[in-house]
Amino acid sequence: MHYPTPIAKLIESYMRLPGIGAKTAARLAFFTLDMREDDVNDFAKSLISVKRDLHYCEVCGNITEEPTCEICQDQTRDKSVVLVVEETKDVMSLEKMREYKGQYHVLHGVLSPMDGTGPDDINIASLISRLHDDQIKEVIIATNATTEGEATAMYLSRLIKPAGIKVTRLAHGLSVGSDIEYADEITLLKAVEGRREL
Amino acid sequence: MHYPTPIAKLIESYMRLPGIGAKTAARLAFFTLDMREDDVNDFAKSLISVKRDLHYCEVCGNITEEPTCEICQDQTRDKSVVLVVEETKDVMSLEKMREYKGQYHVLHGVLSPMDGTGPDDINIASLISRLHDDQIKEVIIATNATTEGEATAMYLSRLIKPAGIKVTRLAHGLSVGSDIEYADEITLLKAVEGRREL
Repeated sequence: MHYPTPIAKLIESYMRLPGIGAKTAARLAFFTLDMREDDVNDFAKSLISVKRDLHYCEVCGNITEEPTCEICQDQTRDKSVVLVVEETKDVMSLEKMREYKGQYHVLHGVLSPMDGTGPDDINIASLISRLHDDQIKEVIIATNATTEGEATAMYLSRLIKPAGIKVTRLAHGLSVGSDIEYADEITLLKAVEGRREL
Repeated sequence: MHYPTPIAKLIESYMRLPGIGAKTAARLAFFTLDMREDDVNDFAKSLISVKRDLHYCEVCGNITEEPTCEICQDQTRDKSVVLVVEETKDVMSLEKMREYKGQYHVLHGVLSPMDGTGPDDINIASLISRLHDDQIKEVIIATNATTEGEATAMYLSRLIKPAGIKVTRLAHGLSVGSDIEYADEITLLKAVEGRREL
């Protein structure tokens, strides 16, 4: 016996999600079958709404329902600092610390010659045009500490510094609460390089 | 900054699925944002279709798009044996062994006085009415080996035996390929009780 078509199709859809294999997808599909009809309809509506109602902020590339995002619209935030991240979810993570009050810029990717991603494929042009605005004094680069992230940081730094704008990079080192014993060599190296006088 | 409403709603929907917490739900929601529009629409359609197009087979309670399911319709299958399971997905698991060629009956639950589930709350009445049919010679009870599953098996056996129908229960014992060292006491006890002469 095969799965009835609607279940088979739903399993296929669940399997497109990251980290969900055939068994989990089947479990989720059967769970869906037993869910309240309202909840399933809400689920379907939110899926459609996420693709239909959200787009990238004209200024910073963050996701928003409006032409510009909540952060760019917020007049109480510092307009002189821009923090550059790879993905929208990085903005959410950084906002959780409730400390940073500047602007953001979302690249939606990193430079990766291996995957054929060049400067024109990610959201760099709009960052450069933002910098023509006199207000911006510092660009903090918060791409991830991967080869691609580091290369992107380097590239941006060379592009921005000549304009006389301060370019900084987030500190890399030991996580708070972590054991030196379990830290990898590169993190340790970064921690030693970035040591500070007490 | 809060998540934009469409993302927040989608995260909420993903969190209703079993085994998916806040962090995974957020990851899935952002992944959805980057999915192809067609795939997301298909996903939404399958969700709705699963609730709208599938219902329980009139005869056995299995899920189907037709009034009766593929297995009940199949004239080549043995009509004299009925295998009773708790959930639809158990039918799929048993069909995978490609050996059993009889009928099924899905209870959609087990007797559970603790949760207030009595004989009228699960699909027992239609099982009894099927037994009035002269064809059925054996009922194999394949409820799970939990307290509720065992109690349900007992209850069904007492209900069915007086009608002169053979009632059997799936064997419990060591899994094939498992180590005695790691087996729990109850499984071992069942394995000893159910020992067979060589």
